[in-house]
Amino acid sequence: MRALVFDGEPRIVERPIPSPEPGEALVRLLCAGICNTDLEILKGYIGFSGVLGHEFVGIVEEASSEHLRGKRVVGEINCTCHRCEYCALEMPRHCLNRSVIGILNRDGAFAEYIALPEENLHVVPPVIRDNAAVFTEPLAAAFRILEQVNITGEDRVIVLGDGKLGQLIAQVVGGVTRNLVCVGKHGWKLEMFQKLSVATALINDPMERGADFVVEATGTNEGFASALELVRPEGAVILKTTIARPAALDMSLPVINEVNIVGSRCGPFRPALEALSKMNVDVHRMVTETFELQDGLRALRRASDPDAMKILLHM
Amino acid sequence: MRALVFDGEPRIVERPIPSPEPGEALVRLLCAGICNTDLEILKGYIGFSGVLGHEFVGIVEEASSEHLRGKRVVGEINCTCHRCEYCALEMPRHCLNRSVIGILNRDGAFAEYIALPEENLHVVPPVIRDNAAVFTEPLAAAFRILEQVNITGEDRVIVLGDGKLGQLIAQVVGGVTRNLVCVGKHGWKLEMFQKLSVATALINDPMERGADFVVEATGTNEGFASALELVRPEGAVILKTTIARPAALDMSLPVINEVNIVGSRCGPFRPALEALSKMNVDVHRMVTETFELQDGLRALRRASDPDAMKILLHM
Repeated sequence: MRALVFDGEPRIVERPIPSPEPGEALVRLLCAGICNTDLEILKGYIGFSGVLGHEFVGIVEEASSEHLRGKRVVGEINCTCHRCEYCALEMPRHCLNRSVIGILNRDGAFAEYIALPEENLHVVPPVIRDNAAVFTEPLAAAFRILEQVNITGEDRVIVLGDGKLGQLIAQVVGGVTRNLVCVGKHGWKLEMFQKLSVATALINDPMERGADFVVEATGTNEGFASALELVRPEGAVILKTTIARPAALDMSLPVINEVNIVGSRCGPFRPALEALSKMNVDVHRMVTETFELQDGLRALRRASDPDAMKILLHM
Repeated sequence: MRALVFDGEPRIVERPIPSPEPGEALVRLLCAGICNTDLEILKGYIGFSGVLGHEFVGIVEEASSEHLRGKRVVGEINCTCHRCEYCALEMPRHCLNRSVIGILNRDGAFAEYIALPEENLHVVPPVIRDNAAVFTEPLAAAFRILEQVNITGEDRVIVLGDGKLGQLIAQVVGGVTRNLVCVGKHGWKLEMFQKLSVATALINDPMERGADFVVEATGTNEGFASALELVRPEGAVILKTTIARPAALDMSLPVINEVNIVGSRCGPFRPALEALSKMNVDVHRMVTETFELQDGLRALRRASDPDAMKILLHM
């Protein structure tokens, strides 16, 4: 099969179709999305080598569970050991021995096939098109925020970052409070929020501070410092950015203001699929361009362009 | 009166006795403690100039409240405006217009007298000696942790830092869990914990990770990174350190591990005074040396010595 791998540099290669281990399904991939984490991996983040990609939709070709065979599925990215203390505590996403597809010790989804634990798979309702289903994983990461902090209708929320993840988070958080402002650097990206009836501001605009919650989804080191400036005392900053480079940070401000900083990673697929089914979240407008897998290198370059939002690969 | 001021360098000066504003009491100081924050101010932290010092006990000489006059008191350090949104939200320690004695826009307690809002004062029970009463303020900061996170008897807690604040925190947290380890750099300081029946480890000892809570009270930039290594996924790091210098930090680890980072500053005086009254907290052994106010410069130098714990000033 054809696959887009990274081993110091990204390359299109021919590989054998993976052989599923016991408990795993073989999924024929239909479509995959390029995430900023993929671009960070190209810069050395987390030292990954293997097939890239962790946002996908595909068809189950082989599985022991009858209810999966032949079905269109999306998949959770953390593959767990079922033996460590965090698995025992029902915190599988923090399994000590986990592999993470396309990120840590496991091949990803920029390929024609992927083998994945059956327990990771979720059947996709027919109403969700392939180009939307690939957003399930990042949308689940947005829903994770609602599991971690209790945002209510009165709360003032700032989403920092006008990129792909910021746009998903704004739609999810906008479902629980209307008191929401999205702050970014790019006029044309902020216009997309306005179509969603979300208030926006440019990062250098004069801005009311003192938000109850600030979600940092800029994908930059500067975002965290900005979030600490915008949140109120005893408010919460939810951190979504994972990047390769340490930054100089002054941590006395969050101590003085007693800010609660909440690291936030992967989230629940069920509410994400439900939101996509009900069209509560608009993802189609976020697709900038679609490439064939064989043009994967061009797709990665396109995804790095400042004028690109989501880039998809079709297999 | 005599006072120890900082205006770029510390000096002993003669000053007029302060005139209390309406609502303020005049307190004749008996004893004050040197805190690491004072030493950070000497290095430029927060740009303070004025009379140093915020840990004190004294006698009320003038007050409009009869129940305060002539009483021995300690005082909360944040002086508030009663008008801003955080005062209205009953978050006076985060008052937008606050002054903070010896730290921000208000003279401190390394002097013969201090003027302070009467509402900030707490009468000290006779059983608490002066040399213990000066610990009320930092002990309150330790009790703040129990207001912010819910530590129970089963929880594994690491206190990082074997200094003055670390020792107070260990005693407060040790009241709610026995599953406590104090981690520091100094064998002789760690021995003091052992006398309190608290388990200890040197920072470079091999150590079980995965604590439910890590309290960072090292007073250094390195402490935060160590705390992030020691806490379990979805655990909490309570940050107590405020220092002048930014540090290079990799914030991807707390995102991946979904760590909750809680800034923690000033705390409630009532449980602190109660703990000192009941001798639940041993502070006397932490006093290294006592100086007269006129020897305040020597006292500051002594407080910076690596073999010093709490240095007190007597007025």
